[in-house]
Amino acid sequence: MMKPTTVTAAVLVIGDEILSGRTKDRNLGYIAEYLAKIGVDVREARVVPDVEDEIVAAINALKVRYDYVLTTGGIGPTHDDITADSVARAFGVAIGEDPRVIAAMLQRYKEGELTPARRRMARIPATAELIENPVSIAPGFRIGNVYVMAGVPAVMQAMLDSAVKTMKTGAAMQVETIEAGGVPEGRYGDPLGAIAAAHADVSIGSYPSYKDGRFNNQIVVRGKDEKAVAAAKAAVEAMLGKLAADATAR
Amino acid sequence: MMKPTTVTAAVLVIGDEILSGRTKDRNLGYIAEYLAKIGVDVREARVVPDVEDEIVAAINALKVRYDYVLTTGGIGPTHDDITADSVARAFGVAIGEDPRVIAAMLQRYKEGELTPARRRMARIPATAELIENPVSIAPGFRIGNVYVMAGVPAVMQAMLDSAVKTMKTGAAMQVETIEAGGVPEGRYGDPLGAIAAAHADVSIGSYPSYKDGRFNNQIVVRGKDEKAVAAAKAAVEAMLGKLAADATAR
Repeated sequence: MMKPTTVTAAVLVIGDEILSGRTKDRNLGYIAEYLAKIGVDVREARVVPDVEDEIVAAINALKVRYDYVLTTGGIGPTHDDITADSVARAFGVAIGEDPRVIAAMLQRYKEGELTPARRRMARIPATAELIENPVSIAPGFRIGNVYVMAGVPAVMQAMLDSAVKTMKTGAAMQVETIEAGGVPEGRYGDPLGAIAAAHADVSIGSYPSYKDGRFNNQIVVRGKDEKAVAAAKAAVEAMLGKLAADATAR
Repeated sequence: MMKPTTVTAAVLVIGDEILSGRTKDRNLGYIAEYLAKIGVDVREARVVPDVEDEIVAAINALKVRYDYVLTTGGIGPTHDDITADSVARAFGVAIGEDPRVIAAMLQRYKEGELTPARRRMARIPATAELIENPVSIAPGFRIGNVYVMAGVPAVMQAMLDSAVKTMKTGAAMQVETIEAGGVPEGRYGDPLGAIAAAHADVSIGSYPSYKDGRFNNQIVVRGKDEKAVAAAKAAVEAMLGKLAADATAR
């Protein structure tokens, strides 16, 4: 069997507001789910503050480890928007006003309205390609394997639609969820571990949630090979069926 | 003036389910907000998969950089719960069944119900202190400056209440939010940047949100010194007032 292609990515969330708890990040979950569907595996995520050294260090650490890095946040018009300059520094390239962006802005703003703050959003690292922003003009950009996107979810989501067009994609992850309901993890943990060991070509996770004083558990089988996922799913279902029968027989 | 004490922390979210997008993390935002209130600044967060080498590397990177590291996830009874073993490896200590945990479990489970899977939750690194779990018995633990907590939000939140009791805390962050409403960031970006430069003792952020085709902006002033925060807030309000007056006068 040919090994399915694996394409990896990391997400870098940039912004003090996430680390202070003021803003609850919604971008990581969205990006992770979106990329999983097209066969790009998110392997790591980091959240860093609006501090240039931290952004540069994170970009440099991630871009060599994964096929792609997707950043969110810090590309607006205010003084705390320092992502573009940080990315330029990480890549050792110059940064300046991109005439393509200025031209697009002049479609919307009168020349007097093109404040220095707005011009700041036209600062794009040399050699970068623009990522279209259909919501509010100021674009994201791609340089090397790093995609730089806005932090506002609606804008980020629109940019992501464009960004993924230039990514290579791997085999999409096949995911099967099996409801274990109220069967405690402590009861099925041992046989599930045996199934996981016997089905090393998939990854099996057990995910409890807790509501109104009760746990509710789901078992998730993930893998790139449909048959392997189906076989592991069948084994999990058989195991849960046996546990239920044993409980009834008692 | 005495420099306010600064206490720093990092959050490490552990779990494949967050990186696949299956589960949307709610712990980082909760922890960040909680710690900010008691004067502990979250400076970085990472999300890593259920892979021992990744967990060990992240713990080792974070524990030397910040006063505290708080982890969530991976301490349940199933084969994919490998956080305790990874933390033991990061600290170079042994790990085994902790008799305190076994004793607590035997209060709840009959001896026959104490499956190997459940006993797995009693594996605690040597020298660690337990963090009480009032929801479902199996405890978290603290070793050195690393606090290891559950991933299920209700359980994590209960553990956090206990965990913070052993933390030193700094001066609490004072936060003021100023509604800029529909005034575009591009209009106030320049004067706001000047205010930020003149008030270097606070941090000022501008946060747009987008709904129904419109941006709505908030400016947030954060700092440990109440007077400095108040002064910066007054400057921002005066600036916004002037912009509004200019717009009316036109």
